Amino acid sequence: MIFPPTSDIIHILYFVAIVAEAMTAALAAGRREMDWIGVFLLGCITALGGGTVRDVFLNHYPLSWVENPSYLLVTGLSALATIPIARYMYHLRKMFLFLDAIGLVVFTVIGCQIASSLNLPLIVVVAAGVLTGCLGGVLRDILCNEVPLLFRSELYATVSVFTGLIYLIVPLVGVSHAISSLVAMALGLMLRLLAIRFNWCVPTFVYTKDPR
Amino acid sequence: MIFPPTSDIIHILYFVAIVAEAMTAALAAGRREMDWIGVFLLGCITALGGGTVRDVFLNHYPLSWVENPSYLLVTGLSALATIPIARYMYHLRKMFLFLDAIGLVVFTVIGCQIASSLNLPLIVVVAAGVLTGCLGGVLRDILCNEVPLLFRSELYATVSVFTGLIYLIVPLVGVSHAISSLVAMALGLMLRLLAIRFNWCVPTFVYTKDPR
Amino acid sequence: MIFPPTSDIIHILYFVAIVAEAMTAALAAGRREMDWIGVFLLGCITALGGGTVRDVFLNHYPLSWVENPSYLLVTGLSALATIPIARYMYHLRKMFLFLDAIGLVVFTVIGCQIASSLNLPLIVVVAAGVLTGCLGGVLRDILCNEVPLLFRSELYATVSVFTGLIYLIVPLVGVSHAISSLVAMALGLMLRLLAIRFNWCVPTFVYTKDPR
Repeated sequence: MIFPPTSDIIHILYFVAIVAEAMTAALAAGRREMDWIGVFLLGCITALGGGTVRDVFLNHYPLSWVENPSYLLVTGLSALATIPIARYMYHLRKMFLFLDAIGLVVFTVIGCQIASSLNLPLIVVVAAGVLTGCLGGVLRDILCNEVPLLFRSELYATVSVFTGLIYLIVPLVGVSHAISSLVAMALGLMLRLLAIRFNWCVPTFVYTKDPR
Repeated sequence: MIFPPTSDIIHILYFVAIVAEAMTAALAAGRREMDWIGVFLLGCITALGGGTVRDVFLNHYPLSWVENPSYLLVTGLSALATIPIARYMYHLRKMFLFLDAIGLVVFTVIGCQIASSLNLPLIVVVAAGVLTGCLGGVLRDILCNEVPLLFRSELYATVSVFTGLIYLIVPLVGVSHAISSLVAMALGLMLRLLAIRFNWCVPTFVYTKDPR
Repeated sequence: MIFPPTSDIIHILYFVAIVAEAMTAALAAGRREMDWIGVFLLGCITALGGGTVRDVFLNHYPLSWVENPSYLLVTGLSALATIPIARYMYHLRKMFLFLDAIGLVVFTVIGCQIASSLNLPLIVVVAAGVLTGCLGGVLRDILCNEVPLLFRSELYATVSVFTGLIYLIVPLVGVSHAISSLVAMALGLMLRLLAIRFNWCVPTFVYTKDPR
C-alpha cells in the first residue's frame, strides 16, 4: 500500500488523480513538441514526482512506484493515450480542471496521512501534503522550461495548505482520521472550484528595482 | 564498488563513459559562457547525477561518489581539461557521439544491475536503467535552462529502454547475467548508432490548442 | 540539532543566514511576479534546499526542517516580511550582500561539519560544504527559470570550496574543529568580500562552435 488504508474511496480517487495528472502533463509535453517517449516520461514524473520527493524527504521507503511498478505503466500509458484524443480534450477542459482539482486534494491528503503515520510534527504533516499535491506540477513546468505555474496561479498551493490544515483541525473535535480525510478533500475541492469559478487570486509581489 | 563486479569490461567502460559525459557537459557549459567552476560542477552533475538520483530513489547508500570520491575529481577535471581542447573537439564530434552512446548503454546496464541486485520488480529494473542512463543529461539541460534534449531527440531514451529490456530478456534463454549485460550493451549501442546514422526519430506530439 | 553543537555562534549565524537567504529569494520571486504563496515557498526552498539535498545524499535523516519544522515558518515568513520592505532594501543592498556572504560560509562550514561527523572522505566533506552553501541558490534560479548564477558569478562557489579546504587544513596544525570552523568562516568571508569589492572573477569558458 502506498498509503494507510483508511478508505477505498481514497485509493480509487488516487488512481483517477494520477491518470488525470498524467493526461494534463501530456498536453504540456505536446505544447513543447516532445516525442512520444518524452510524453510517457513527463506523464510519470508529473503524476508520481510529488510523492517520490516526499518519500525521499521523509525517508519513507520503498517509493510507491518501486513497490507498485504498475503505477509507472498506468501514468505513462495514460499520457500516451492522450495523444490521439487531445483534439477533443479542449471540449473537456472543464472536466480536466475538475479532475486536476481532485488530484490536488487527494494527493495532499495522502501526503498528510503518510506524514501523520510517521508521527511527524504538525507543520511537517502540512508540508508533506503540499509537497505531494504541488511538486509534480512544479517538476513538469521545470522540465518544460517554464516558471512553475504554482508560484503564480490561482490558489493552487493555497488550496493544498488549506486542505492540510483542515485535515489537522477536524480530528480535534473527536472525528476519526478517515472522516477528517474526506472532509478535508471536500472542503479543499470546494475552495479550488470556487477559486477557478470566481478567478480568486493570491496577491502578487512585483519587484522591479535592482535587476541583476 | 559502485556496481556488482560482473565484469572488468563494464568497470573500464564506466570510466570511459563518465569522462565522455563530463566532456560533453563542458561544451554545454561553454555555450552558456559559464566560468571554470561552473564547468567543473556541470561535469560532475552530468556524469554522476543519474546514478545519484537512482540510488536515492532505490535507497541504495552510500552513493557512488560518497564511497569513491575520486569520481568527483575525475569528472570535474575531465570537464576542465575540455576547455583548452574544445577547439579541436569539433573535428572529433563523431568520436564523442560514439563515446556518448557507450555511456548511455553502460549507464543503463549498471542501473539495471543495481536494481536487479536489490531484487526489485522487472519494471523497476528497466526504470532504474533509464534513470541512470538518461537523467544526467536531463539535469545538464535544466541547469543550462533548456528543455531537456532527451524529451525531443532521436531514440535517446528509447535506446535506454531497449537496452534494459534486452538485459531482462536474454537471461531467459539460460545465459548468465554477465553475458546478458554485454549483449544488452552491444545491441543498445548498435541501435543508437543506427539511429544517429539514419536519423531515426520517435514520432513527435504537437499540441497547439488551449495555450495556457 | 541540525548540526553538531560546536558553537552557539554558528547556531546564531545559521539563523541570520537562513533569514537573509529567504529575503533575497523573495526579491527574486518579486522579479518574476510570483504570488505570496510563491514568495513563501521560494524562501523556504532557497534557504533550506541546500541542506536538504546534502542530507538526502548523505543519508542523514531526519532532515533539519523535519526535526525543526519552525525553520519552515522562519524562512517562509522572512520571505513574506520582505514584501512590504522591499522598496527600502535597495538602499540596504550592501548589507544584504554581506549577509548573503555570511550565509555562504556558514552553510558551507555546517555542511562540512555534518560530513565530518559521519566520517566521510575529505573530498566528500568539501563537496558536502559546497552543496550546502550553493545549492539553495541554484534551486532558486532554476525555479525562476534562469541559468544558475552560481555557474557564472564572481567566486561564489570558489569561496565555498576555499572555505571547505580551510576547514580541513586548519586542524592539521593541532587546532580544534570548533576553532577551525571559525577560521574557515572568517577567511571565506574575507575572500568573498574582496571578490565583491574588486570584482574578482573566475575565467569564463566560451564555446560557440557546434551549436546543437
